[in-house]
Amino acid sequence: MKEIGVALIGYNFMGRAHSNAYRQVVPFFAPRLTPRLKVLCGRNASAVRAAAARLGFEEWSTDWREVVSREDIGLVDVSTPGDSHAEIAIAAARAGKAVLCEKPLANTVAEAKAMLKAVTRAGVVHMVCHNYRRVPAVMLAKRIIDEGRLGRIHHYRGTYLQDWLVDPDFPLTWRLQRKVAGSGALGDLASHSIDLARFLVGEISEVAAALETFLKERPLEGRPRKRGKVTVDDAAAAVIRFENGALGTIEATRMAAGRKNQNRFEINGSLGSLAFDLERLNELEVFFRSDPGNVQGFRTVLATEAAHHPYVKAWWPPGHALGYEHTFVHTIHDLLEAIADHEVPRPSFADGLANQRVLDAMERAARTKRWVRVPSR
Amino acid sequence: MKEIGVALIGYNFMGRAHSNAYRQVVPFFAPRLTPRLKVLCGRNASAVRAAAARLGFEEWSTDWREVVSREDIGLVDVSTPGDSHAEIAIAAARAGKAVLCEKPLANTVAEAKAMLKAVTRAGVVHMVCHNYRRVPAVMLAKRIIDEGRLGRIHHYRGTYLQDWLVDPDFPLTWRLQRKVAGSGALGDLASHSIDLARFLVGEISEVAAALETFLKERPLEGRPRKRGKVTVDDAAAAVIRFENGALGTIEATRMAAGRKNQNRFEINGSLGSLAFDLERLNELEVFFRSDPGNVQGFRTVLATEAAHHPYVKAWWPPGHALGYEHTFVHTIHDLLEAIADHEVPRPSFADGLANQRVLDAMERAARTKRWVRVPSR
Amino acid sequence: MKEIGVALIGYNFMGRAHSNAYRQVVPFFAPRLTPRLKVLCGRNASAVRAAAARLGFEEWSTDWREVVSREDIGLVDVSTPGDSHAEIAIAAARAGKAVLCEKPLANTVAEAKAMLKAVTRAGVVHMVCHNYRRVPAVMLAKRIIDEGRLGRIHHYRGTYLQDWLVDPDFPLTWRLQRKVAGSGALGDLASHSIDLARFLVGEISEVAAALETFLKERPLEGRPRKRGKVTVDDAAAAVIRFENGALGTIEATRMAAGRKNQNRFEINGSLGSLAFDLERLNELEVFFRSDPGNVQGFRTVLATEAAHHPYVKAWWPPGHALGYEHTFVHTIHDLLEAIADHEVPRPSFADGLANQRVLDAMERAARTKRWVRVPSR
Amino acid sequence: MKEIGVALIGYNFMGRAHSNAYRQVVPFFAPRLTPRLKVLCGRNASAVRAAAARLGFEEWSTDWREVVSREDIGLVDVSTPGDSHAEIAIAAARAGKAVLCEKPLANTVAEAKAMLKAVTRAGVVHMVCHNYRRVPAVMLAKRIIDEGRLGRIHHYRGTYLQDWLVDPDFPLTWRLQRKVAGSGALGDLASHSIDLARFLVGEISEVAAALETFLKERPLEGRPRKRGKVTVDDAAAAVIRFENGALGTIEATRMAAGRKNQNRFEINGSLGSLAFDLERLNELEVFFRSDPGNVQGFRTVLATEAAHHPYVKAWWPPGHALGYEHTFVHTIHDLLEAIADHEVPRPSFADGLANQRVLDAMERAARTKRWVRVPSR
Repeated sequence: MKEIGVALIGYNFMGRAHSNAYRQVVPFFAPRLTPRLKVLCGRNASAVRAAAARLGFEEWSTDWREVVSREDIGLVDVSTPGDSHAEIAIAAARAGKAVLCEKPLANTVAEAKAMLKAVTRAGVVHMVCHNYRRVPAVMLAKRIIDEGRLGRIHHYRGTYLQDWLVDPDFPLTWRLQRKVAGSGALGDLASHSIDLARFLVGEISEVAAALETFLKERPLEGRPRKRGKVTVDDAAAAVIRFENGALGTIEATRMAAGRKNQNRFEINGSLGSLAFDLERLNELEVFFRSDPGNVQGFRTVLATEAAHHPYVKAWWPPGHALGYEHTFVHTIHDLLEAIADHEVPRPSFADGLANQRVLDAMERAARTKRWVRVPSR
Repeated sequence: MKEIGVALIGYNFMGRAHSNAYRQVVPFFAPRLTPRLKVLCGRNASAVRAAAARLGFEEWSTDWREVVSREDIGLVDVSTPGDSHAEIAIAAARAGKAVLCEKPLANTVAEAKAMLKAVTRAGVVHMVCHNYRRVPAVMLAKRIIDEGRLGRIHHYRGTYLQDWLVDPDFPLTWRLQRKVAGSGALGDLASHSIDLARFLVGEISEVAAALETFLKERPLEGRPRKRGKVTVDDAAAAVIRFENGALGTIEATRMAAGRKNQNRFEINGSLGSLAFDLERLNELEVFFRSDPGNVQGFRTVLATEAAHHPYVKAWWPPGHALGYEHTFVHTIHDLLEAIADHEVPRPSFADGLANQRVLDAMERAARTKRWVRVPSR
Repeated sequence: MKEIGVALIGYNFMGRAHSNAYRQVVPFFAPRLTPRLKVLCGRNASAVRAAAARLGFEEWSTDWREVVSREDIGLVDVSTPGDSHAEIAIAAARAGKAVLCEKPLANTVAEAKAMLKAVTRAGVVHMVCHNYRRVPAVMLAKRIIDEGRLGRIHHYRGTYLQDWLVDPDFPLTWRLQRKVAGSGALGDLASHSIDLARFLVGEISEVAAALETFLKERPLEGRPRKRGKVTVDDAAAAVIRFENGALGTIEATRMAAGRKNQNRFEINGSLGSLAFDLERLNELEVFFRSDPGNVQGFRTVLATEAAHHPYVKAWWPPGHALGYEHTFVHTIHDLLEAIADHEVPRPSFADGLANQRVLDAMERAARTKRWVRVPSR
Repeated sequence: MKEIGVALIGYNFMGRAHSNAYRQVVPFFAPRLTPRLKVLCGRNASAVRAAAARLGFEEWSTDWREVVSREDIGLVDVSTPGDSHAEIAIAAARAGKAVLCEKPLANTVAEAKAMLKAVTRAGVVHMVCHNYRRVPAVMLAKRIIDEGRLGRIHHYRGTYLQDWLVDPDFPLTWRLQRKVAGSGALGDLASHSIDLARFLVGEISEVAAALETFLKERPLEGRPRKRGKVTVDDAAAAVIRFENGALGTIEATRMAAGRKNQNRFEINGSLGSLAFDLERLNELEVFFRSDPGNVQGFRTVLATEAAHHPYVKAWWPPGHALGYEHTFVHTIHDLLEAIADHEVPRPSFADGLANQRVLDAMERAARTKRWVRVPSR
């Protein structure tokens, strides 16, 4: 059993989700490469020490630079806020490590380009963590489309709705600061809708968009009496066109009261349609025009059949729901297999760059109030 | 019991729906003015004669000009394709008749302006038939918003999806010809989403949009071997901004396989959210942030309670579903009451004009690839 | 155009629903026999006079005996409480009239037998008004089963849930008095579930059951300070076996808070399954094991396609919802056609009797605390 | 950090689910007692050795008798088929170990009594693994009921529907043999519905029931040409009464085509209602009569709020779905805390015995075709 040493940079929400995936992939998927949780990195020594113990890491460190070049590290997992992605990922690539990076890949197109260049030059395996591609129901959607069962795609309708900012007392965390997060709902949520659009429909060619910050000020973290300026968008909305002629809409917001994590898409083609909602992630709605006329309708496929749906075989019998964290286990599994095969899995840093270009085009479209073409290179 | 003589111009789909409403309003609502189905007008003598018999009209005619000025006619109902709305409605107004006009009010802003001017000058009652305002669940949505229970509105998300054009053999009917219909999914479907947006959220201030015709040619009606050019859009998509700061999206298509009549909207405010789908027209989804923390969730309100929901008292006990045609009965009821009171009901021709301005702005935005402001006058 | 004179006995909820159906069937279905609303009968002269005017009857009467033998009456419609069904229907049959009778056919098996005997002897057309058979989605269910597409039926799961008795201040109306209504939720609601079971699955052979009256006393109608005894069941529950080996459950209650009119059934067979809910009456859920393995799931069929679903052609385009009252229009249509053809439509009084036998068996099973066989004759 | 040595007997489906829970409980819940996966037991040496490696056990054994008395074992987890539960659990209790036993507790009431007696005499902690109590949405249901927010309970409607036996070629596994499994859908599925009924509504006092085996013969495992007799039920249906006056139905089947794991219940009370479906386990449907009249409806509560829903704090942000396996993690967490506190958690072996008495009463009721009282001791 061959091992690969993992250094995880970041120990908050994504750090917890990723470390769980490294632990779970072994008993359920038995990948050829066994991940060994070597080092957890963070800036706050006492916090990172406690997290390392809880999450099962052998060591902890506050010096990621030292860690990413260690001999016993084969994979560097960048789960920090966006403003440090480029620096860490490039250093890891130069040290010859495989790199997994959280989404969005970077805060700017320039950074994303530099990152892709670095991993390509270094010849290392690279992946961006758009985990929702690996929901079994989403993989099923991909297969249905690839097999031509939807025909020509006419429409993509992607909405990612959350509501945690609807409370005006929610504090000004790093995610609300442009310098750290790059953007708001756009990079955090719309980037997922964009990735799913590219994965399922194809490349986006042009966009018209609007960004909005409904609440311009919020209390400072830890100092609730003081208020600071929100420098990112609360919400983003766009009309998009695809290279293949499909027409789409993308909307992301953290201000949709009652929508907790509604990453939804609907795709309409000449032969059928699909719909998915992350809040019911085990289900895919499927419509085929080829069904007999009197029983046509959207069917709710519970994508939990070992014999028919990807990844499920490793888990439980039909109808036994998977959850959010499983999407990371699937992602890590495919990454480990790709490393074993010296291949670059999807979504790669090239996908991350393409995604960034759409985000950037949306920002420019919103600013200039015109349609903006998404550059293809 | 006072009567009002009705002349209905047009006897197809809308003619059937309107004439049913005139018949049903009496036993169920007992309006002060009883509609008397006097004359049905159409161009084809034998067809209009048969329709008049079936739909319960006393007379029929192929000469609407003569009919709209008859003494025994008090209400002219314009249910023809869009290219004749202006001419008929203006003539009826000049003859001093109340006018009900199918949506969209006209094929151009200029026509709509002329129509509003004519009814205003003549001092007659006028109404545009956006019947979906009068779904009880939609009226409930209106009340919830007006009472401030959603707080400040952040988002409007309107989609009107049908699929009858996804079949490439569907023929080139009048609805696919710009000269007759004015536009395609835009005027036919998006106009409903726009009306609901204006009704529920407020005036739309600017738009970015795309129009698309996926299938450029279709077989001619009655000559399926020959093909003609589709001169209207199959689909329309827009990002919109409201005067009150809300951000919205509107999408309409006749190419969404499996969606039969999905006129859906979702509204997110600072205190709660609403969602409606015409395919389940008796239901309104409602979310309140003020609900106790552990039982917050979208509730499915079955808007069929006589004591609580508008129009229902006239019909059946709770849980006994209403259907599509009831929306016309409610519209006609309110129109008759307005005529009795010499008041102009909503949506009026002024609403029809405002709607037309949004449609027009969307067309210009799509053509110029820029955001376009909607003129307020 | 041949006419048939209708005498409607009863003018409350069912009287309203039936008279609407007689009015609507003509413009939408153009039956060969045109119903003419001749006489409305009731006990209270002023009330019946007002109702006759509102519902469109030519005359009114407080003497049903005189009416049912009038020459100009061809069809007697019995929409009274259960305790007068037998007397009226038998008199009408003896006078040679076609008879439509509300469900349940009678308050006892003996009455039902006498009624069937009377109509059979008289050779008149007879029908019991189990209107839910004629929901298009239910007719679709019937067709699917008859075509063998569900295979061998294993399970029938019928629940009819309402909540209007959950309010302890709801008064002691006739429906809560055994002498008038015969039984409570059992005859009012379970009789519908039983009819659908017999229609879709087959004859019921034996039952085990429980009846329950949760609130034993209620305020008197019009004298809310005084209370009287509830002499019928609030709820009924049964396990049933069918002659063909299927196993079923039936439950009916008026005490299910939040369920307004949830007449639901699910049928599981060796090849597929079906589910229906009257609160969403345009939909049928359908599952086929023959679907490809990766896209199996319950599909939501919107039973509104003119080309494929019964009765729909007469109404509106796809996705334009029908409502509760349409089920009566369909029933009346089929009755009128049957009268024109001198045939007995289903459900006939024989069906009404079979239904009554199941109701009776359930009462005995509940009382004796044993399984009870349903006599087949 | 104090440890407790775990011996897990059985390594198939439940063995996998339990071992995952022991692994996951530590990083997510940090229980006071840390489980140490000491020994995995099974009958087939090579299979159990492989499983031990995969599931993370330090040792493996084919001799459970030796293992359950080892000094380094503190907790014996019985995840074998039902026919060995009693022997193993009693031996473990006598050796002074805490015992977790899969459901149903035993194959007979006599065994269950002996097991309860053994653990009581030994004074050890005991628990039966009805994991569905610890779905956060089910715990929320419990809290709502306990706080009186549903008022007096009228109805419990429990169905547990699966479809894996609808395929006639599914082989005659141990679950289809009475000697090993005790019963079929009854013990496997209905026991869950009974546990939820007792947990949420109260003790069951009497039952009427039917059992059915639709397919009496099936191919032998590994010898598909030969067929053997199915000696358990495919399906069970019952009407039940509770001590507190509520009326219920319970149905369980493995023959409901299309229902993969639909463990559903609905509870109707005088003040409100609840509904749950395991296929959408993060959701609870809740209805309150106290809601304002015009917005009453079943709300879909996504039970994923750390601040409001049990267990969730340990996992992910709102709307990030939990899955099937989490219910075991929650169960193990509460068991470990109970062991640390020397307290007996619920459901205990006493609950297991009470459950067994209901199962037994249902079997007798089905056999004798009478209502059967459930003995309370």
